[in-house]
Amino acid sequence: MKVGELGERALVNLIAELIDCTAVLCPGADDCSAIAFGDRYLVVTTDMLHKKTHFPREMSGYQIGWMATAATLSDVAAMGAAPIGVTMAIGIPGDTEVSFALDVMRGCNACCTQNGTTLLGGDTDEHEELTLVGTAIGSVNQHQMLTRAGAKVGDVVCVTGELGVAAAGVRMLLDSRYADHHLRESALKKLFEPQPRIVYGQALADSGAVTALIDTSDGLSLSLYELSKSSKCGFYVRASALPISEEAKSVSNDRLDELTLSVYRGGDYELLFTAKQERLTAIPIPYTIIGKVTASEMQLDVDGVLYELKAEGYEHLSASGPSV
Amino acid sequence: MKVGELGERALVNLIAELIDCTAVLCPGADDCSAIAFGDRYLVVTTDMLHKKTHFPREMSGYQIGWMATAATLSDVAAMGAAPIGVTMAIGIPGDTEVSFALDVMRGCNACCTQNGTTLLGGDTDEHEELTLVGTAIGSVNQHQMLTRAGAKVGDVVCVTGELGVAAAGVRMLLDSRYADHHLRESALKKLFEPQPRIVYGQALADSGAVTALIDTSDGLSLSLYELSKSSKCGFYVRASALPISEEAKSVSNDRLDELTLSVYRGGDYELLFTAKQERLTAIPIPYTIIGKVTASEMQLDVDGVLYELKAEGYEHLSASGPSV
Repeated sequence: MKVGELGERALVNLIAELIDCTAVLCPGADDCSAIAFGDRYLVVTTDMLHKKTHFPREMSGYQIGWMATAATLSDVAAMGAAPIGVTMAIGIPGDTEVSFALDVMRGCNACCTQNGTTLLGGDTDEHEELTLVGTAIGSVNQHQMLTRAGAKVGDVVCVTGELGVAAAGVRMLLDSRYADHHLRESALKKLFEPQPRIVYGQALADSGAVTALIDTSDGLSLSLYELSKSSKCGFYVRASALPISEEAKSVSNDRLDELTLSVYRGGDYELLFTAKQERLTAIPIPYTIIGKVTASEMQLDVDGVLYELKAEGYEHLSASGPSV
Repeated sequence: MKVGELGERALVNLIAELIDCTAVLCPGADDCSAIAFGDRYLVVTTDMLHKKTHFPREMSGYQIGWMATAATLSDVAAMGAAPIGVTMAIGIPGDTEVSFALDVMRGCNACCTQNGTTLLGGDTDEHEELTLVGTAIGSVNQHQMLTRAGAKVGDVVCVTGELGVAAAGVRMLLDSRYADHHLRESALKKLFEPQPRIVYGQALADSGAVTALIDTSDGLSLSLYELSKSSKCGFYVRASALPISEEAKSVSNDRLDELTLSVYRGGDYELLFTAKQERLTAIPIPYTIIGKVTASEMQLDVDGVLYELKAEGYEHLSASGPSV
């Protein structure tokens, strides 16, 4: 069988089976791996992005560097960890302008410094297709680290920020009819220069209220499925509670379309978490309660009608998979 | 100007100028970057390898995974650090057999476990060309970390293992006349499955005798030039003292050719270090003294005749550069 037929997640599962990782917490099943170091956990994550799949031609070099850095820092945020630094390996075609390459690295650097961390170094390599691999390292108190496991029946499920902004940006790129200048600008900014929720992640870890955490880079529904798999629970989500963005509303044909952009499309890099209802006041950041943790079913309540949440969103390597 | 005309080292220098790295030790000028963490330094390095440049078709999937892991662990060894773990991002064509992809990851895992460390995780991404990016993290006592800076006039310069083995392997691949079965097997094993000198690196750091350290992955001469640049010194190397391998001798046409393979070709992943002569007895590992640190000139003494060492070896991204 070919890897393209198997799909990314199935391949990762097969890989996980053959790795000796007894010293590692949550290998493959979280945004980061974690390993004990002194009285803390070091968390580590690596993300490979490349031109054909991740960098539309409308992106500047700066934005490409920013995006690759933000994607990996978002994974650190999703463990409740503080970033220590980022390395960036960049594969670059020989006929690329030097100024473009430097612009990419400026974007990496800016994303690091604006998130209180440091570009530790990297590697450059001549490569046919522009390829960036960011690796972020962070650390967190052992008793504060948040993972995808830990959600309990009765917990509320919450999300930071708004949904569907990046997906609206993709639609605006594809169709110039969506011409509201202000919304187009904000959607493309979020799509191309997402803000990793580093400060939010640490605040959630510090609060003691949060039971499970993930980022929404793969979309709300797939992220809920990941929490479900790790926490062995279900979710009930109220569509009317979703913080659907103005950007998503502005490009949607109808209610269903608006929900599709907000639930089944990725790229927003918000944080999705479950928390004890009675301890919500300990959480010092803005968020929206969108539903609750249940025993097993994955339900979306659309104005009183219960639908099953589909495990659909952003996945590479699968020929049949949908993508933003 | 295009990056292919500029060359890798010049590009890295330009990048270093625009990065905010006040918190980072030796960014760009060492095998790893280092950042203070508690009473230790964390060292981090990332290496991008891809099929066209790094993986001849004779390599198995296992060897490709091993090589990518070994290359990055060798950089940790070259700081005198103990590895904490490795992440591996793998870009893989969709039409790759799943069994081959798993074999790559088996090689990564084996290289980690055989060097006392752990594959912490990774990323998979569909990619036109097989591309592996290994990132290794290590730690070292702050007062023991070894870098390329620190060599002093009068120090001896030493190398572990033998020279020119990998280069001999490359020649054997290109020319089937070199058919000594035993030597071919050992050369290809070293070329495709190099042993990162993790234990040696830590022993050198513990010894207190070593003043500067680098690995020889780019070849002996380029590595000496790197030490020279960071330590602001020169080197005098005696050709008669070089531990030239049987493999290099077996494929060489003459003395000059044998020296070329041993001095100007990379891939051996040995450790090159400078040390205080009077403290050599504190070094508990096998090594060969090949010369001494001088004020500024880069000299190779071939049977009494002094030649200038050329800054020639293994560099990517430069169209005119030589390569193994």
